[in-house]
Amino acid sequence: MPNIAIVGATGAVGAEFLKVFAERNFPVDELRLLATQRSRGSRIRWRDREIEVQETTEESFRGMDFVLFAGGSASTEFVPAAVTHGAIVIDNSSAFRMDPEVPLVIPEINPEDAMGHKGIIANPNCSTIIMAMALKPIEDAVGIDRVVVSTYQAVSGAGRAGVTELDVLIQAWARGEDVEKAYGESEKVFVHPIAFNIIPHIDRFCEGGYTNEELKMVRETQKIFHRPDMRIAATAVRVPVWRSHSESVTVETKVKMSAEEAREAMRAFPGLVVQDDPRNTPADTPSGNPADSPQKTIYPMPMYTADLDEVFVGRIREDVSVEKGLCFWVVGDQLRKGAATNAVQIAELFL
Amino acid sequence: MPNIAIVGATGAVGAEFLKVFAERNFPVDELRLLATQRSRGSRIRWRDREIEVQETTEESFRGMDFVLFAGGSASTEFVPAAVTHGAIVIDNSSAFRMDPEVPLVIPEINPEDAMGHKGIIANPNCSTIIMAMALKPIEDAVGIDRVVVSTYQAVSGAGRAGVTELDVLIQAWARGEDVEKAYGESEKVFVHPIAFNIIPHIDRFCEGGYTNEELKMVRETQKIFHRPDMRIAATAVRVPVWRSHSESVTVETKVKMSAEEAREAMRAFPGLVVQDDPRNTPADTPSGNPADSPQKTIYPMPMYTADLDEVFVGRIREDVSVEKGLCFWVVGDQLRKGAATNAVQIAELFL
Repeated sequence: MPNIAIVGATGAVGAEFLKVFAERNFPVDELRLLATQRSRGSRIRWRDREIEVQETTEESFRGMDFVLFAGGSASTEFVPAAVTHGAIVIDNSSAFRMDPEVPLVIPEINPEDAMGHKGIIANPNCSTIIMAMALKPIEDAVGIDRVVVSTYQAVSGAGRAGVTELDVLIQAWARGEDVEKAYGESEKVFVHPIAFNIIPHIDRFCEGGYTNEELKMVRETQKIFHRPDMRIAATAVRVPVWRSHSESVTVETKVKMSAEEAREAMRAFPGLVVQDDPRNTPADTPSGNPADSPQKTIYPMPMYTADLDEVFVGRIREDVSVEKGLCFWVVGDQLRKGAATNAVQIAELFL
Repeated sequence: MPNIAIVGATGAVGAEFLKVFAERNFPVDELRLLATQRSRGSRIRWRDREIEVQETTEESFRGMDFVLFAGGSASTEFVPAAVTHGAIVIDNSSAFRMDPEVPLVIPEINPEDAMGHKGIIANPNCSTIIMAMALKPIEDAVGIDRVVVSTYQAVSGAGRAGVTELDVLIQAWARGEDVEKAYGESEKVFVHPIAFNIIPHIDRFCEGGYTNEELKMVRETQKIFHRPDMRIAATAVRVPVWRSHSESVTVETKVKMSAEEAREAMRAFPGLVVQDDPRNTPADTPSGNPADSPQKTIYPMPMYTADLDEVFVGRIREDVSVEKGLCFWVVGDQLRKGAATNAVQIAELFL
């Protein structure tokens, strides 16, 4: 059974790695939990074991078969050492994703790419994975020309500190205090107060007025699909939701595909769950308020997708603004399929 | 000075009508406040007057020069009577907007249409107004081919009851209670719990899997611009924000326009404020977290646009996925420019 090391085991993504390894009954001989010096010596319960967290050093990887990096600066610092020790590195940071020597893999989409690795396999950005899962059955069926996407990203995308910050601001508001004042005293994980607000800015600004998060969604999707010609415009937005990213996606296709054909193709795709029952609500509801209608419509929402491994898609409809196009709404837990689940699935390709 | 009646004076939009009339020093002789029987007899302070709310009847409009309807079923019931009494009706409901006899007006865009009215002038949907304000300078400069828009709409778009529902759910959560349980005991203004959630569904479902809110954004924009050929795809989404709708907009233009040209055209457009300073944040911020950078970027956010009459636009950039296109982010208070301010501006056209 393989020996596995997790770098960043005490963070939000690290915790999901542990849960997902356990849930999927991944065979594990030694499980080595690594973190910064600050977390050294803390103990984490995993299945029937209690494991002491060690500080990551260049020697931490000796004898490991797989090393999973949760993300952040530890990757740049320690991935080369892990490769040198002969481990297969699965890296959730953005450091190596666009390196032409490094495969960028979603196991349902391009598992064959993983086999050409030279020590490192990169795990794509969370928003990229969630979108790509819904794009793949469309690409396979009719080919994609262009994608326009706007995201609604949860605070846990910024790690535990993002969750804490929203919590602190909401608690202050509930006590009758001012959200902006509470933000002033917070760690400022987000550039502006996120409680009861929408922030159209994730990661740093880059060329052309795009953020790095938006450029990742463009370039990583092109790489995963081997389609550098796929045209993608992304707008990445933070919303006051705990967990699961939502995305509003508009796709221009090479050949016309009906909404029902898209639903069928998506239903048949592994890891994708279609939640789409746009039943007509009566036109004469007294207030125009859909809640007055006994017929409830079904579509994915972040509140109901947290802790789940699947990606959920709904609101699938033909785009009325083009001859050949579709609109849909896709939601997925960005710490699960958007990070940990995808990484563990990559490791499973080698079992 | 004109006599003015407000129908729905005690609701969220009605309250804004009163504020906006006062702030803009609109000349008013008699101000008649009308509502349902339930609010009859309540007293509302407006400037130096205290006005008793009356129940709306077909006789309520005698002697009125302008009658403003806040929206809802009162419009269908009482607009014809108000017209019969010779008043100019400015109607914020959706009942008459698509009637070819009724002008649909945003004063900065198509004021001349108002002059052809036959008693009724319709105030457009809030999301339509906010988007159209940012589209107009682009349409004038280079012409628009296609628009793809995804919205982030505040709970006050569903009136006071929507605000109360989010408040109740957040307060329950802060007391350690379950949001879904609190929702179960609520009035269910929204079809699902809105606290810490995103609901891709506003108004009832119609043909093709689109909601009525989405179809309004398409048809009303085409009517306002006299461009039935303008191609528009909309996704309307509710978010847990008190006030101000945000929209992620992607526009394909007939002629190429640079981001800087768009900024200049938007700056010159009345009622539109450009908040757009996408300064590069250094690539080497330790955590990749923009808050670590001393250079703050500027873009509109709903937290800072409530109670303001202007529409705010930022994140203006050339669309990397088409030859001739722009992406931007537009935010506006949907009870102000999205409803009351626009309606009062329409009345001002007749002073």
